[in-house]
Amino acid sequence: MRGAQSVPLRLMVGREHGAPTFSMRLFEVEPGGNTLLHQHNYEHELMVLEGEAQIAGGVSGSTIRSLRPGDAAFVPANETHQIRNVSDGILRFVCIVPTHFDCGKNECDITPGS
Amino acid sequence: MRGAQSVPLRLMVGREHGAPTFSMRLFEVEPGGNTLLHQHNYEHELMVLEGEAQIAGGVSGSTIRSLRPGDAAFVPANETHQIRNVSDGILRFVCIVPTHFDCGKNECDITPGS
Repeated sequence: MRGAQSVPLRLMVGREHGAPTFSMRLFEVEPGGNTLLHQHNYEHELMVLEGEAQIAGGVSGSTIRSLRPGDAAFVPANETHQIRNVSDGILRFVCIVPTHFDCGKNECDITPGS
Repeated sequence: MRGAQSVPLRLMVGREHGAPTFSMRLFEVEPGGNTLLHQHNYEHELMVLEGEAQIAGGVSGSTIRSLRPGDAAFVPANETHQIRNVSDGILRFVCIVPTHFDCGKNECDITPGS
């Protein structure tokens, strides 16, 4: 299974456009592809635009949610999650993140990819 | 032209779901419909899912941006804006707002519809 590094991210609206609070990114995942199973201390809000996704999440990563176009999901901060393309075609989804998060250290307060 | 009160809002992810920073709402606008030309001191990030939209914006509301499915737009805080359905079918778009904003008064720091 492919990792996050193979999932292209397109910044639709972000800090470079003047966004002060949150950033909208577009992801495209090839059939059979997925993001890494990972966690971080800021939240995601997702909406699937095309294809069919599963989000493996929860404290242990064992909860599965299925999403079709128009379905949205909230991934709270610190929850382990992985987005998988379970359709035969491309999976396209938007993923919104805060531009900043509180990690307790000044040097890591800007969200990556925001 | 119809005003904002005729444009249904569906909260996809918001404060009631635990969203701490921003909320995702889905709007559906009938052919010929539009939101009110208005402004507020928090930003919008939009993506069109279906149909064709125009955003009248800018300081005077005279700048027009055209959006098709997959197109995103940033409406900065305090900018006058109106979203118009300029297609023959339904216009569906997601609009993300911060859950809180600084209006200088404690009693209005929660964003309406978040």
